[in-house]
Amino acid sequence: MRMAFALPAYTPPDFSGSPLDAAPLVAYREVTKTGVAPEDFHATSIYPEYFHIERDEWRLLRESRMDCVVVLEEDRGLSVKELRHLACGDLVACGRRENGEDGIFVHTGGFEFPGEAGEKFAFRGRLTRESSFSTDYDELYGLLEHERKSGFILWVAGPALVFDRDGRDAFVKLIEGGYVHGLHGGNALAVHDIEAALFGTALGREIYSKRNTPLGHYKHLDAINSVRGLGSIRKAVDLGRVSDGIMRAVMALGIPYTLAGSIRDDGPLPEVIGDAYLAQDRTRDLARRATTVIALATQLHAIAVGNMLPSYRVTDAGVRPVYFYSVDMSEFAASKLADRGSLTARSILTNVQDFVVTVERGLMSRAACLTPPE
Amino acid sequence: MRMAFALPAYTPPDFSGSPLDAAPLVAYREVTKTGVAPEDFHATSIYPEYFHIERDEWRLLRESRMDCVVVLEEDRGLSVKELRHLACGDLVACGRRENGEDGIFVHTGGFEFPGEAGEKFAFRGRLTRESSFSTDYDELYGLLEHERKSGFILWVAGPALVFDRDGRDAFVKLIEGGYVHGLHGGNALAVHDIEAALFGTALGREIYSKRNTPLGHYKHLDAINSVRGLGSIRKAVDLGRVSDGIMRAVMALGIPYTLAGSIRDDGPLPEVIGDAYLAQDRTRDLARRATTVIALATQLHAIAVGNMLPSYRVTDAGVRPVYFYSVDMSEFAASKLADRGSLTARSILTNVQDFVVTVERGLMSRAACLTPPE
Amino acid sequence: MRMAFALPAYTPPDFSGSPLDAAPLVAYREVTKTGVAPEDFHATSIYPEYFHIERDEWRLLRESRMDCVVVLEEDRGLSVKELRHLACGDLVACGRRENGEDGIFVHTGGFEFPGEAGEKFAFRGRLTRESSFSTDYDELYGLLEHERKSGFILWVAGPALVFDRDGRDAFVKLIEGGYVHGLHGGNALAVHDIEAALFGTALGREIYSKRNTPLGHYKHLDAINSVRGLGSIRKAVDLGRVSDGIMRAVMALGIPYTLAGSIRDDGPLPEVIGDAYLAQDRTRDLARRATTVIALATQLHAIAVGNMLPSYRVTDAGVRPVYFYSVDMSEFAASKLADRGSLTARSILTNVQDFVVTVERGLMSRAACLTPPE
Amino acid sequence: MRMAFALPAYTPPDFSGSPLDAAPLVAYREVTKTGVAPEDFHATSIYPEYFHIERDEWRLLRESRMDCVVVLEEDRGLSVKELRHLACGDLVACGRRENGEDGIFVHTGGFEFPGEAGEKFAFRGRLTRESSFSTDYDELYGLLEHERKSGFILWVAGPALVFDRDGRDAFVKLIEGGYVHGLHGGNALAVHDIEAALFGTALGREIYSKRNTPLGHYKHLDAINSVRGLGSIRKAVDLGRVSDGIMRAVMALGIPYTLAGSIRDDGPLPEVIGDAYLAQDRTRDLARRATTVIALATQLHAIAVGNMLPSYRVTDAGVRPVYFYSVDMSEFAASKLADRGSLTARSILTNVQDFVVTVERGLMSRAACLTPPE
Repeated sequence: MRMAFALPAYTPPDFSGSPLDAAPLVAYREVTKTGVAPEDFHATSIYPEYFHIERDEWRLLRESRMDCVVVLEEDRGLSVKELRHLACGDLVACGRRENGEDGIFVHTGGFEFPGEAGEKFAFRGRLTRESSFSTDYDELYGLLEHERKSGFILWVAGPALVFDRDGRDAFVKLIEGGYVHGLHGGNALAVHDIEAALFGTALGREIYSKRNTPLGHYKHLDAINSVRGLGSIRKAVDLGRVSDGIMRAVMALGIPYTLAGSIRDDGPLPEVIGDAYLAQDRTRDLARRATTVIALATQLHAIAVGNMLPSYRVTDAGVRPVYFYSVDMSEFAASKLADRGSLTARSILTNVQDFVVTVERGLMSRAACLTPPE
Repeated sequence: MRMAFALPAYTPPDFSGSPLDAAPLVAYREVTKTGVAPEDFHATSIYPEYFHIERDEWRLLRESRMDCVVVLEEDRGLSVKELRHLACGDLVACGRRENGEDGIFVHTGGFEFPGEAGEKFAFRGRLTRESSFSTDYDELYGLLEHERKSGFILWVAGPALVFDRDGRDAFVKLIEGGYVHGLHGGNALAVHDIEAALFGTALGREIYSKRNTPLGHYKHLDAINSVRGLGSIRKAVDLGRVSDGIMRAVMALGIPYTLAGSIRDDGPLPEVIGDAYLAQDRTRDLARRATTVIALATQLHAIAVGNMLPSYRVTDAGVRPVYFYSVDMSEFAASKLADRGSLTARSILTNVQDFVVTVERGLMSRAACLTPPE
Repeated sequence: MRMAFALPAYTPPDFSGSPLDAAPLVAYREVTKTGVAPEDFHATSIYPEYFHIERDEWRLLRESRMDCVVVLEEDRGLSVKELRHLACGDLVACGRRENGEDGIFVHTGGFEFPGEAGEKFAFRGRLTRESSFSTDYDELYGLLEHERKSGFILWVAGPALVFDRDGRDAFVKLIEGGYVHGLHGGNALAVHDIEAALFGTALGREIYSKRNTPLGHYKHLDAINSVRGLGSIRKAVDLGRVSDGIMRAVMALGIPYTLAGSIRDDGPLPEVIGDAYLAQDRTRDLARRATTVIALATQLHAIAVGNMLPSYRVTDAGVRPVYFYSVDMSEFAASKLADRGSLTARSILTNVQDFVVTVERGLMSRAACLTPPE
Repeated sequence: MRMAFALPAYTPPDFSGSPLDAAPLVAYREVTKTGVAPEDFHATSIYPEYFHIERDEWRLLRESRMDCVVVLEEDRGLSVKELRHLACGDLVACGRRENGEDGIFVHTGGFEFPGEAGEKFAFRGRLTRESSFSTDYDELYGLLEHERKSGFILWVAGPALVFDRDGRDAFVKLIEGGYVHGLHGGNALAVHDIEAALFGTALGREIYSKRNTPLGHYKHLDAINSVRGLGSIRKAVDLGRVSDGIMRAVMALGIPYTLAGSIRDDGPLPEVIGDAYLAQDRTRDLARRATTVIALATQLHAIAVGNMLPSYRVTDAGVRPVYFYSVDMSEFAASKLADRGSLTARSILTNVQDFVVTVERGLMSRAACLTPPE
């Protein structure tokens, strides 16, 4: 009954047959204005893309993401850049046809997902709150156990993750259990996590009892002001002022994170990156390493990371898929992400509190089962 | 840390002081047309209501529900009837003022909920998906343990309860654990539960793997037709044709249930009550006994039972509150029920699958903790 | 710029070529138990289905609907019956293969929708609140003008249609303008429409100002009780007691309607059909005539009518599509209907108030443009 | 029937009676670390707040916003600053009691809204999609006509505003009609508006026909790249490259706007402010002038502006309310804003397309009625 998790095999394209064997080399045009691509620039997708850079050499993009351009580097490598990072003189791959006509091949069918091939057109198309998620949980347990040792699990979270005591506690256990390798969120995630550490509240309301506290609307401001006074979250943790919660756990274990500023923030906390595009770059640095991403109750950040995430990762062991889960309450949010077109993107429609508590329990009970008797 | 559950005390009104001591007796008018109330009829609320029927005797309504009329019975008792059940000659209590002016007192403040009194106006008013539900789960565990022995727990469920294997299994465990004393749903609940028993599918889709099965659109029709062929669900269970699931468990344990027909039904299954108002009457018979109601992922049936449920129950031990939980994914559905105005009505915004699985695990782990070592 | 509306052409299957020319005749099995189909019964879909009843004669089902069985009548005609209507001795068409193997051909590609053929796989799959609906409104205007004269427009409405003054008024204008040929709803639709006529409120709240009225919770009960006292809605209208609104307009113009009872009803009003399956039958009588159905802010009734509606209608002029629009606020509700698999099913995600007001204005301004100068 | 719009009168507090006549002067503490408030700092609310700065002088905050601190300026004025803008030596008002005990009075009941006083506790508390919005539209027409001449109407919009042709066109007419005095949105609003101007699409899909265009996923990137190539949106408009739409209209009429960057952006367009906190400051400059704010289909930006907006404005004519409307499809989004606690915050639950089209038509038809015959 227990699902054994295995990464699907990857089959590269066959470049030896027609018509790819007759494909031209990819052409480049030079950037003549900073941050502006030449006409007819090729834009990347989430799929593995191969570029015919030399006779008989098709090179797969590493660390790709959608909606970027491909630049030929001095070392003959290909990098995937956002428009704003283009420099004058950069050589940008051009051509928009996807089947080799321009020396570019977009490979959409590289992975064979076990048991799904051939069935996919028969699936009831729409995912709703009434879909069955039992199998998703079970697959997720298998995946997370695998990734804990062999992958990089990046979590993306909205503040609702810390609005509930049990959800916040369960996520801390996931961090301590080794299931969190990176974290991305906004100012509010950290603010209310620290507010909970200092006062037991989120926006002035107790995260267990739901009771409003006197002068509750000061709580998050006092949390922000305290941390700003100390100079950083890091300092607040090191001094023991912030002695529990997600930010403490992340810092205690040296887990990389990014907190992106947004226009609705109070504060912000010192570690928050105020420049949206610098925040995007730093978060993409996490996304480059990610093999599984789980986005919890946030549209803004889930879409942000979804945009910067390819459907595959090139590792020492070869090409593997990147898994992307989003957990949200609304079909609307799920649909926004589902159009990514990857079999590895899944949505689970539920409350983030229950999701995190259920996943933590599920992983622990599996771990308990696996522990051999002494 | 463990919450000890206790029913809140009930304080009846004080009829000895002013102005209630000077209140008139309640007046009645006779019904002159079947199913039609006399002008100025008094309509019931969800609250305990007292009727001044004789000098110095205020009688509390038993088995009340909102939007009904109060009829003086031959034995001097007061019954709470739907308009359609009025017979010619019935004496209907009249008067619409609620503070005794017409010999009727609506008692809204009878229960003292521990820890909430005096705080309620300070609560962040709106319940959303981002509210903390940890405390609701913990309170629910305590409540269900209490009610398991001393109350009557009525569950109301939409078909989504059986669309997911783990959710369906968990609910069966709740039945077997003694936490289900009555069940109300529609035709679809039973149809897809039986479809799952016969074919492992719901609407043709496997409830674990989500895979569509060949000729999947026949599955629920075959399930219906089989049961109709056998004559009843009861028969299908007794013959072992339906060997797992919710309907089987309910029948095996003799738990009372009602299945109400609706205009969107296929079939229907034989036990389904096609007449909406007979179904309402039969379901109210369950609601009369209920001390806790939990409505899962159904607007139609949750509102139906909410309408027929008072906020209190008169038991041998006195007057106690009736608890009403609704579990749904949308704030819209939660709001529809929340206007009932009772502190005992709670909404939990989440996916029914996770809710049932979480509740079952929570109850079992508490039970395990409580079991004394042998 | 103005869209000229035209019904798409219908192309029947070609039965002369292989493999249909070699198809067997359809086989029948006899019903041996009332309301139970024989094994291997064929179940209908929403599509045109042809039955090979005699050599070289394939007969198209008239007045089909999904999830029913096909019975050979004494006059050699084929009728489409719900399971519950099967009588002993009925001959039921059997076989579940859809391409003639059993003498049954399900014709999914009969209509050519202009401009959409060949593009459909390229459409952004998911309809959300962020989809553009301008074209849907414009197409709907053209369609309704056509159907006003040449079709049968059946509206299906939840009570929210009468909770807002402007929405209610606009719908009355649509009735008076000839755009409403049938109406289906529940008890609440009529109750609150009549409450608005009598008191200007819905559930005690004024439908324009939103102000709560004193003793507001009595308003709908008084409305119900008054009509019950008079004997019928018809009587209340004829006597002038109900002098505006939707029910009055429907009755004044002799428009057929069905009001289906449900378990959550108060009352009910006299014209409401309490038996769910009788209500289904009566409503299917309306659906048999419908060429366009528009469902407004109701899941229960929209699904009910969707279930009983085929994707085509056989008229004197030939085979034409049946159009089905659903108007709702949530992607969840839209998805429930969208899986019907017909190009003629459309969802518009918006508030029913704005939808009705916008459609009424759109039709009137087009009518004004069309009026020739005198 | 026509509602005459009038601003409600404002009644300042009476400082002459007890206990305010005995209130102390407000105390200040000095900022000793940049961007950090002294302990016990007072945080502002959305309400008018008066500070007892000298004997017999209570000064009302001008240009307030919630969650800020109050700084005594050299000219004895009081400014309302975000924490991050505090400089060493700033004197910050301290004290958290709101009824004068600390020399600070928070005035929650200054405005008398006609017809609502005394009724508000009786209102059906919850706003849902089923609430009546007719009166809100009519009030909004009156308000917008007033504000067009005498106020400052700031619109806040998500990209859905430009995903539909009719909605986009209607908003352009509102701009041209003088109903838009400021605009705030994100990169995507401008990107897809310009994409529509250049290609007739949004994210590659035609905004009228909904048809996907070939190479549709390049459209928004080409739009971005073109504008970046020209140097600015301004330039693209001046050169006639962007010849219709919202950005063109805003620029043609010199309407101030802010576009705030976010981490999910492609590009960005040159005028977008990448630093979240600079974007907040610039947008607050618009908010300082706003007397009415209408937020369309955006949670991020609606909350951002809601946070920086007080409930009142001090004008030459005295103190007047600031009106805040949010238009969204979900009760969840509406609830997030509704807790602001101001009678001037309203939500309308509908699709932004219909809202904008309806408002534009409503204003135009009123304007037509008002035009005197020549």
